[in-house]
Amino acid sequence: MPDTILDAVTSDPLAMGWMQGYPPPAEKRILASEAGHMRFPMTRWAFSNMRQFCPTVRVGADGVHAAPFARGLRDDLDGVMVTSIGGAPMTFAQTLIDNFTDGILVLHKGAVVYERWFGVTGPETRHIAFSMTKSFVGTLAEMLVEQGVLDPAAPIGGLIPELAASGFADATLRQVLDMTTAIDFNEDYTDPNSGIGAFSNALGLTPRPAGYTGAANMLEFLPAIGKAGNHGDGFTYRTANTEVLGWVLARATGKPVHQLLTERLWAPLGMAGDADMLVDSAGTPFSGGGLCLRLEDLARFGEAVRNSGRNAVGEQVIPAAAIARIFAGGDPERFAKSSYPALPGASYGGQWWATHNANGAISARGIHGQTLWIDPAADMVIARFASHPIAANSANDPHSLPTWAGLADHLAKG
Amino acid sequence: MPDTILDAVTSDPLAMGWMQGYPPPAEKRILASEAGHMRFPMTRWAFSNMRQFCPTVRVGADGVHAAPFARGLRDDLDGVMVTSIGGAPMTFAQTLIDNFTDGILVLHKGAVVYERWFGVTGPETRHIAFSMTKSFVGTLAEMLVEQGVLDPAAPIGGLIPELAASGFADATLRQVLDMTTAIDFNEDYTDPNSGIGAFSNALGLTPRPAGYTGAANMLEFLPAIGKAGNHGDGFTYRTANTEVLGWVLARATGKPVHQLLTERLWAPLGMAGDADMLVDSAGTPFSGGGLCLRLEDLARFGEAVRNSGRNAVGEQVIPAAAIARIFAGGDPERFAKSSYPALPGASYGGQWWATHNANGAISARGIHGQTLWIDPAADMVIARFASHPIAANSANDPHSLPTWAGLADHLAKG
Repeated sequence: MPDTILDAVTSDPLAMGWMQGYPPPAEKRILASEAGHMRFPMTRWAFSNMRQFCPTVRVGADGVHAAPFARGLRDDLDGVMVTSIGGAPMTFAQTLIDNFTDGILVLHKGAVVYERWFGVTGPETRHIAFSMTKSFVGTLAEMLVEQGVLDPAAPIGGLIPELAASGFADATLRQVLDMTTAIDFNEDYTDPNSGIGAFSNALGLTPRPAGYTGAANMLEFLPAIGKAGNHGDGFTYRTANTEVLGWVLARATGKPVHQLLTERLWAPLGMAGDADMLVDSAGTPFSGGGLCLRLEDLARFGEAVRNSGRNAVGEQVIPAAAIARIFAGGDPERFAKSSYPALPGASYGGQWWATHNANGAISARGIHGQTLWIDPAADMVIARFASHPIAANSANDPHSLPTWAGLADHLAKG
Repeated sequence: MPDTILDAVTSDPLAMGWMQGYPPPAEKRILASEAGHMRFPMTRWAFSNMRQFCPTVRVGADGVHAAPFARGLRDDLDGVMVTSIGGAPMTFAQTLIDNFTDGILVLHKGAVVYERWFGVTGPETRHIAFSMTKSFVGTLAEMLVEQGVLDPAAPIGGLIPELAASGFADATLRQVLDMTTAIDFNEDYTDPNSGIGAFSNALGLTPRPAGYTGAANMLEFLPAIGKAGNHGDGFTYRTANTEVLGWVLARATGKPVHQLLTERLWAPLGMAGDADMLVDSAGTPFSGGGLCLRLEDLARFGEAVRNSGRNAVGEQVIPAAAIARIFAGGDPERFAKSSYPALPGASYGGQWWATHNANGAISARGIHGQTLWIDPAADMVIARFASHPIAANSANDPHSLPTWAGLADHLAKG
């Protein structure tokens, strides 16, 4: 990170002029060959245009569209006052700037009450979801568990023989789902020497170092991960778990994750648009972070989860028991072994974050500020895309988490 | 080319097992880093999955879908006998095998009378159109000419100052549209030393040679092309013309070609699905060959052209005068200066091939067998995707052209 980070207004991608013109001036070009799509401030343009930099596959809407959301916009939300963790009071509108928001939708009782767009992001943008992708994949897994296709107690080494000699071998599917595996892998995005660097090289969505001889793709990388500690002892957030999960889903169904997303979520939930999914060089969808989708379709997923798995016309798409398990969350004691000071008492289960707050809110979270927030007590769903310069939720949680709670309180007042 | 080319049955991509499994076995993997997506027989899989290998942008359907085509399948078409040029009689069904067909739709009076799929290609596949893309872009240009936005007599150097010192400078827009420019550029796909090699490196959809220092993208490549001869003297097929045309469209409208396709064709024609468009490293859509679309949407475009520019509900999407100009074609005398023995008396105009045959058929043609064939006298539209191993229309024309004529005759009998 540079010493001085541009603020959201200065780094607005339209103001900076990225990729404008035919061809764009050389100094305004974002090049995949230079990993420009993953470097701030170019990310403010690139996160809304990922397929232009990376190979992708299609997650398909089926053309049988759900009705658009009802709308009842409420200007009063702009002025809702929230107090950031350790900070000063500010308006909801101001938090959006401070969090480098690219787009936000707030749904109350199923209707859009707030909608804002920034920079180059709009209703048809397929913005990268990053780790919110995990919650989609986790939901697929919980669906297959509920349908008896997958046994959560099964050890991974039995499900994926290629992992029988890896650190995942004696972890259960449930431990992978809840990220309580004990593997030798460090996921610190701000540490260039961490395991996530090797992970990224295997994934190959940014240029590999000259002479690279490491894993050629994600599924060749996973078997080399060792064990460190005892599975089940505690929660540690590691994206490799979700890649294993995607592998399990594909092996169990014979269908790659993007096809499962198409058949089991995109079509039956009446998503309004196709989504893109980044793939590695072997064509494997990036389960831990590769989904790029419309913000409204993210909200549509949230609404279905809020409605116990039913779509807009009341059809049960996701088994209610699977949704109940997601709301029940993981184990807060195991969660407490990791440090998330902004999320006291929370847990992680089924690839979702459960706050266990008074309202029973759960969340899908992605790096750089991606958020799906589902508050069942307040009948509220918030979908947000962002391009925060800092690759850690701790950078935006102090503004964001109090905001979601403040909006819930405000909307509950009627 | 190897001495022995696998036939269509042997090279069937499912039979060959490309990209099956999680991950696919190393010997069954198709890698962009090895240009596998452009090498036969991997092309038989890759042409149906191009976005997985290349950066793309979205050409968007708008969700206001046209009704599906009426259907009245006719099994009798399989047995229609045709005689290939210089060859033996064979059935229509057999020609499909001989031409490495991936999918074909035949429409008669607007209804689907014949539909076949092969290998990994199906109704939702976005198959690469290659040079059929030119006819979409040419149609956009003819629309803008008709609407007075573009003057076909304008010299290119005035429209695009960056080309004022190039061989295109004193060519008119009409000459670019009709490919009668005289530029120093050789487009022989079977000659590794031709200008198309430099073109491909600039485009960058396959790996560049080590130490490459040439043009970084397509629009940097075009200004370096010189002049050879007199503009307007004769037709010479050169994809560079279409890249210039795309540049003119973008400059005149302020919108990139994929956005123009979205707004002016995909949405108003009621295309049923989004399309993908390959882009170069500066994000410029590949106007000469980058469109990847559903076969049905290709046919829908053909139907609109057959119906003088009207969509399925009778709305005039493309001005009738623009369509009339496309059917009128280019100049057969200029065309005759190139060698197309399978197309005697034909012409090229507005980025379409006009046969000037008794039925007044026109065609969009793409390398490796891509075909949109519009026969107004027979009320027939044929849309075909293929992955012929030989990168020249001369390889499949001997089977294909008599087939389209034979089907027209057969359908005209009622």
